[in-house]
Amino acid sequence: MTETNVKSKQINDKKTRTQIPRDSVFIGSKPIMSYVTAVMMYFSGGMNELSVKARGNAISRAVDVVEVSRRRFLDNLTVGDITIGTDVLGEGGDTRNVSTMEINLKKSD
Amino acid sequence: MTETNVKSKQINDKKTRTQIPRDSVFIGSKPIMSYVTAVMMYFSGGMNELSVKARGNAISRAVDVVEVSRRRFLDNLTVGDITIGTDVLGEGGDTRNVSTMEINLKKSD
Repeated sequence: MTETNVKSKQINDKKTRTQIPRDSVFIGSKPIMSYVTAVMMYFSGGMNELSVKARGNAISRAVDVVEVSRRRFLDNLTVGDITIGTDVLGEGGDTRNVSTMEINLKKSD
Repeated sequence: MTETNVKSKQINDKKTRTQIPRDSVFIGSKPIMSYVTAVMMYFSGGMNELSVKARGNAISRAVDVVEVSRRRFLDNLTVGDITIGTDVLGEGGDTRNVSTMEINLKKSD
């Protein structure tokens, strides 16, 4: 939620598209089908590339979302680069590491 | 367990290495450090490539295992191809789909 607000603010302030990150869906704790619907709506809008991102335990769900979207709904969806990494959360002496994953999807015509 | 037995039997029967799958660690529900230790022991044995595999909810843990191994213990470990897929479990009308992930690791000298 907070991130969405920040993004909207940037758009309003700067009127430029360069600061908007690559189109992406962030996977959280909602049911898988909520995100599958978001992916389908995104691609039905004429876009061809989407990045599915997740952190921590939601990583498994992100893979589920991609697999359900690809196998059940969008036959022409292909999985591109998959990258993993680590985000450091917290400040000072109280930091935690959380794993991240990003799955890039492409729709072929 | 069953799979290990099958593999051993194949080795004894055929005396060939071609039927053994690529070296891999399967991530289950044990603590992350159990698998990190397994990864470290594997690479300390002189091998250079390893495949980390997981299904379902263990996928998040697999990413944790790779990230902890890479960042904390093995500086020369690089992440290669990452593939995702779906396994169909069950028989007849009672089948379920479970997501899978495989992360290939390489140790550079």
